[in-house]
Amino acid sequence: MRKREQMRVTEPASEAWLLRKIAQSLHPNTRSSRAGIRLGIGDDAALWKQRAGYETLLTCDWFLEDVHFLREKHPADAVGWKCLARAVSDIAAMGGQPRCFLLSLAIPPTHTGAWLEVFLVGLRKASRRFHCAAAGGDTTRSDKILINITVVGEIKFGHAVLRTGARPGDQLFVSGRLGEAELGLREVQKPRSESGKRNDRVRKHLYPEPRVALGAWLAARKLPTAMLDLSDGLSTDLPRLCAASGVGALVEEKRLPLALARGEREDKKGQLVHAALNGGDDYELLFCVPPNKVRQIPRKVAGISVTRIGELTSARGIRVLRMDGSKQMLDDRGWDPFRAE
Amino acid sequence: MRKREQMRVTEPASEAWLLRKIAQSLHPNTRSSRAGIRLGIGDDAALWKQRAGYETLLTCDWFLEDVHFLREKHPADAVGWKCLARAVSDIAAMGGQPRCFLLSLAIPPTHTGAWLEVFLVGLRKASRRFHCAAAGGDTTRSDKILINITVVGEIKFGHAVLRTGARPGDQLFVSGRLGEAELGLREVQKPRSESGKRNDRVRKHLYPEPRVALGAWLAARKLPTAMLDLSDGLSTDLPRLCAASGVGALVEEKRLPLALARGEREDKKGQLVHAALNGGDDYELLFCVPPNKVRQIPRKVAGISVTRIGELTSARGIRVLRMDGSKQMLDDRGWDPFRAE
Repeated sequence: MRKREQMRVTEPASEAWLLRKIAQSLHPNTRSSRAGIRLGIGDDAALWKQRAGYETLLTCDWFLEDVHFLREKHPADAVGWKCLARAVSDIAAMGGQPRCFLLSLAIPPTHTGAWLEVFLVGLRKASRRFHCAAAGGDTTRSDKILINITVVGEIKFGHAVLRTGARPGDQLFVSGRLGEAELGLREVQKPRSESGKRNDRVRKHLYPEPRVALGAWLAARKLPTAMLDLSDGLSTDLPRLCAASGVGALVEEKRLPLALARGEREDKKGQLVHAALNGGDDYELLFCVPPNKVRQIPRKVAGISVTRIGELTSARGIRVLRMDGSKQMLDDRGWDPFRAE
Repeated sequence: MRKREQMRVTEPASEAWLLRKIAQSLHPNTRSSRAGIRLGIGDDAALWKQRAGYETLLTCDWFLEDVHFLREKHPADAVGWKCLARAVSDIAAMGGQPRCFLLSLAIPPTHTGAWLEVFLVGLRKASRRFHCAAAGGDTTRSDKILINITVVGEIKFGHAVLRTGARPGDQLFVSGRLGEAELGLREVQKPRSESGKRNDRVRKHLYPEPRVALGAWLAARKLPTAMLDLSDGLSTDLPRLCAASGVGALVEEKRLPLALARGEREDKKGQLVHAALNGGDDYELLFCVPPNKVRQIPRKVAGISVTRIGELTSARGIRVLRMDGSKQMLDDRGWDPFRAE
């Protein structure tokens, strides 16, 4: 990336020029992909029509250089993909479908050339993949690359899955594998790595796939009593769900779906368990199902594995049942920007 | 402000703590003020219900330290007020009513105490004034204060006023006085000023009032063929409207509603005209009315003066009819972040 970034813009950058470039790159290419947008980028506000019988989901997410990504380590297209994927994951966590997004982008004048092009390629790919069309945004300049994404989603009225409905005895499930993105981050952070080899872990860190289909499948059947997406790590996000529902939880270590790579030695397991409990950025869904509905949860939904990892308890606090049979309290060791160094 | 900012937070700052503080401060105090919000701050996404027969307006706006405001010069409550007012102004410019907003806030750990309190006071005041309730948001930390606001508004289906409908011969109107906020900014920027005396100009710069009632009044009667809000200055924003509609414009200098203060000497007029043509941040409405409807435009709407300043032409470009009868092209001299130093 470094070489590309040193390329200078030939056209004079202005806000209008930048907006035009973004609008051209992200313009929905078919009528059907406009997702209810009656008026997109270019006016004071976008016009969007909610379908009858639905309600609107609204979420926004920061994605900031030096807080959430590194200019030299994270390819521009991964920045574009991930800024949208993270926000779409919040819609998935309610059981909804993403519909459109607003992009707020502040960049240094040095980054309006090649970096912006590649960023928009990644963002456009994500926009098509998640059926989430660009509706508008705002641009300005800054020293660091600053991104904020608002996603507008939809869900049938009354079908949204909140964090507040879980009860003691409900069984706790997660999608996919836990800790994988954290292991990918470590590879990306290695010296000389410029996002390194593109193995599963690195891919999951750079190009996460929000679990939209799974979330919608669960919500349509009204199976979960509570749900959220794992953005900061199980030991940070599970307490949030438990606090909202007024319950505790017991997690069984042996059930955690670890990110064990093929041929990897079993003695690494301690590290993998630690990553599964505390690693952020997985964007898997964590959800609770009442005992009488557990049988309705298949092992896979839309190609994504679903694993039972424990249950909710009336005793507050989060405990882990270790491999050796002991129980320990789980400390909050996930990601918090005010704690991170 | 400096003294206050040095106060330290006594509670340990965490993302959860910050979110709780924001939620408590901005919580809508009555059911009716919830503005369609079925689920607010605290879950993965907010739930909002659009009224039948309406469509949704979506807009977002950056408000960044050192780009849009200065930590030492702009009081925290003005930062809170203005970040919302700016975004609401985009809803007003479509003729819509603001309904709810998402706050994305990134602040240094040193600013989670007194600065945040005062910021939230200003934001809450604006939220109540504009009937625009907090629905959600995202927080993280950063070295500079970074704000992004998304506003969700509503308008009756088909009533939105775009930038694209103006025709040659349409008469050009503005609300309020032009250049006032620019003059206020100059006072605030003076050495030793800490937002200075609170005269009209400084107030307009610090606490702008988006013209929601006027915009809605005009849109309900389908009077304007095109409309936008003056955020970057007439010489920057009028070309945007003209480009969108494929027209030119002639502005009559003598008709400009200047920000002449009582007792101010007439020889300052050149400066005032310059500020009226190029000053940003006024958040007045600029709109076009066909000749046969001009009589329906009163001198004041909802207490805000409305002034005819010129007309649209088939000849492209923006010209100014000077006091001396000469015509000059108007250069784009408003605010562009990629030009600003």
